[in-house]
Amino acid sequence: MGMAELAGSRPAWRRRGEIELQATAEKASHALNMDAEPESGKCNAWAASGPDGILSPYKIKRRVVRSDDVSLRITHCGVCYADVIWTQNKHNDSMYPVVPGHEIVGQVTEVGSEVKGFNIGDHVGVGIYVNSCGDCENCNSFLEHHCSKRVVTFNGIDTDGTVTMGGYSNHIVVRERFCFKIPDGYPLAKAAPLLCAGITVYTPMIRHNMNQPGKSLGVIGLGGLGHMAVKFGKTFGLKVTVFSTSESKRNEAIDLLGADNFVISSDRQQMESLKSSLDFIVDTAAGDHPFDPYLSLLKAEGVMALVGFPSEIKVHPGSLIFGSRTLSGSGAGGTKGIQDMLNFCAENKIYPETEAIKMDYINKALERLTNRDVKYRFVIDIANSFN
Amino acid sequence: MGMAELAGSRPAWRRRGEIELQATAEKASHALNMDAEPESGKCNAWAASGPDGILSPYKIKRRVVRSDDVSLRITHCGVCYADVIWTQNKHNDSMYPVVPGHEIVGQVTEVGSEVKGFNIGDHVGVGIYVNSCGDCENCNSFLEHHCSKRVVTFNGIDTDGTVTMGGYSNHIVVRERFCFKIPDGYPLAKAAPLLCAGITVYTPMIRHNMNQPGKSLGVIGLGGLGHMAVKFGKTFGLKVTVFSTSESKRNEAIDLLGADNFVISSDRQQMESLKSSLDFIVDTAAGDHPFDPYLSLLKAEGVMALVGFPSEIKVHPGSLIFGSRTLSGSGAGGTKGIQDMLNFCAENKIYPETEAIKMDYINKALERLTNRDVKYRFVIDIANSFN
Repeated sequence: MGMAELAGSRPAWRRRGEIELQATAEKASHALNMDAEPESGKCNAWAASGPDGILSPYKIKRRVVRSDDVSLRITHCGVCYADVIWTQNKHNDSMYPVVPGHEIVGQVTEVGSEVKGFNIGDHVGVGIYVNSCGDCENCNSFLEHHCSKRVVTFNGIDTDGTVTMGGYSNHIVVRERFCFKIPDGYPLAKAAPLLCAGITVYTPMIRHNMNQPGKSLGVIGLGGLGHMAVKFGKTFGLKVTVFSTSESKRNEAIDLLGADNFVISSDRQQMESLKSSLDFIVDTAAGDHPFDPYLSLLKAEGVMALVGFPSEIKVHPGSLIFGSRTLSGSGAGGTKGIQDMLNFCAENKIYPETEAIKMDYINKALERLTNRDVKYRFVIDIANSFN
Repeated sequence: MGMAELAGSRPAWRRRGEIELQATAEKASHALNMDAEPESGKCNAWAASGPDGILSPYKIKRRVVRSDDVSLRITHCGVCYADVIWTQNKHNDSMYPVVPGHEIVGQVTEVGSEVKGFNIGDHVGVGIYVNSCGDCENCNSFLEHHCSKRVVTFNGIDTDGTVTMGGYSNHIVVRERFCFKIPDGYPLAKAAPLLCAGITVYTPMIRHNMNQPGKSLGVIGLGGLGHMAVKFGKTFGLKVTVFSTSESKRNEAIDLLGADNFVISSDRQQMESLKSSLDFIVDTAAGDHPFDPYLSLLKAEGVMALVGFPSEIKVHPGSLIFGSRTLSGSGAGGTKGIQDMLNFCAENKIYPETEAIKMDYINKALERLTNRDVKYRFVIDIANSFN
């Protein structure tokens, strides 16, 4: 729901609009042979062909499975705000046709000769990235999302020069490293949002040791990311306070998601009463908002993890220095963290709240997502959409 | 040299100028009986009597030693920018007469009946705080600098209602908890700056695990704090890069302090060449400066510790989210950290660079400090100033 997913999903250079990179992108786009019907590896998809962002059926070609590749028949794909961003060219770097989707789950249909971790029929997921260099300090630490050569799952340029196409399609071929096992019994439709929304909040929560029972957590914003932060927080044994601008979310926060406390952030008295009371905050708010009032809610040495993407952060130095408080950004997560998170969700029966849709509802869904009219994640039933 | 010391040394409420607290302060000030010559516990000091900040000799009275008190004959006191702030009423909360000084060292002359850790003749130090509640979450974790009832060493109101008076004086009485052992053989004149400048940079360096040999550290600003950050960094085995606005500091940074690299922060090319190369940054700059260019120098998951005190922090969210970078404030340190730091400096022969002065040079010294004309810390030779 937030802008965070998109923040986590784009390499930094992509946002700078550098001329030479743009030129490369155009070349790569031409290489797709957009009009021809592919002979093999053919794949049904939905794509946006221009900045109006309207999606329609489109045929693409997937690569032949390489030795370290896994091919999967996609059953479900979550709908992330990133899909709005790049179908509508909001960052001026879209390479049409854009086939969005980076919360992908499905079943393995083919594996390369060197693939060891997957077998045909396995339930698997693919998230925000499909490639990285594999040999840098970050990759060697399973922090591939920080690799300078990471390749995003759609509207990215892969190492072979092709433009990546995402999960709004009926199959995909990816390197084994970027394929994750969905634990037995975990519903595929529920697994999809974990691959972006889930990992985006799980990563900073683990990194900053928010999994300490009895500690207190504030969650700012209650969209796709925020509702997962509440679920993780409760499972970690935290006392969770949700901050929202909308009274309408109170009942769901408490009754559906299990939060302990709900605060309207404009209520000064309530905010004042919580001063220096929270160990952690996860800020999933996409829109601009002041930071000082939230930082003041942290105890000494408290940590606020930023996964939303406002236009600017302004902080009074005292908000950080008094109490030695921390503001830390986070986007997406590495491959080890993704598998850990999937296992954690299965073990603890954590399921995202989803609204199932068919592929042909996607244009309406993206419109509703833009208007924040979703509880809390659309998931496309791909398996039943391409008959 | 930076504003950081002052940042660390003032309780948050003190900067808000709340009316009721101000009223309390005035009452406390009246209780001092400023004109009378004290009968016992008499103490020679230098004080500022008004916002011109000019210091002159002044007699004060120290309390009788209580059961958990230590009394010390002060031999040296470091000169911190906080001394300028409160002698000149820059925060509109000075309670005159102001006897500044919170980098205090000396010899124990008397101990209370319950004091266990100190004996007469011991070399000891006193830093930014002289009291706290002793029984909150922070005090119980030896993070007394975060206690909401902490009392600063000068221009603070102690629990008995008196206004605290600092180290520009020939003796002081403090609670044992806020008294620290200066290790045998460590020169007292060199120990003084450790009690504020030293601990202010040591605390975040330890907290954020900057003591990992082979990692890289950037130090922004080369004043009282910055030069200590370089010394600690080199002792930790880090590769240290100093960022400064002034070419004139290059030789000292490299030759005197042992930095590995020196960068003029306005040199875009050099800054660009260091992108994503540093594990840590300690920002000691007091003046306003952009944050994004420095944050971009951090590796993925790198940490920038803020101990300086600019007027505002503005950060692009991408500077934190891409690379999952951290900006963390820090001020002063707790009692355990202070003793650890003193021991660490003695074991590793880390000595601040100081310029020794006599008490009657203090007005000139504060003027020079304001003009950043000191390498790197003035230390008043108290023992030889009050004859």
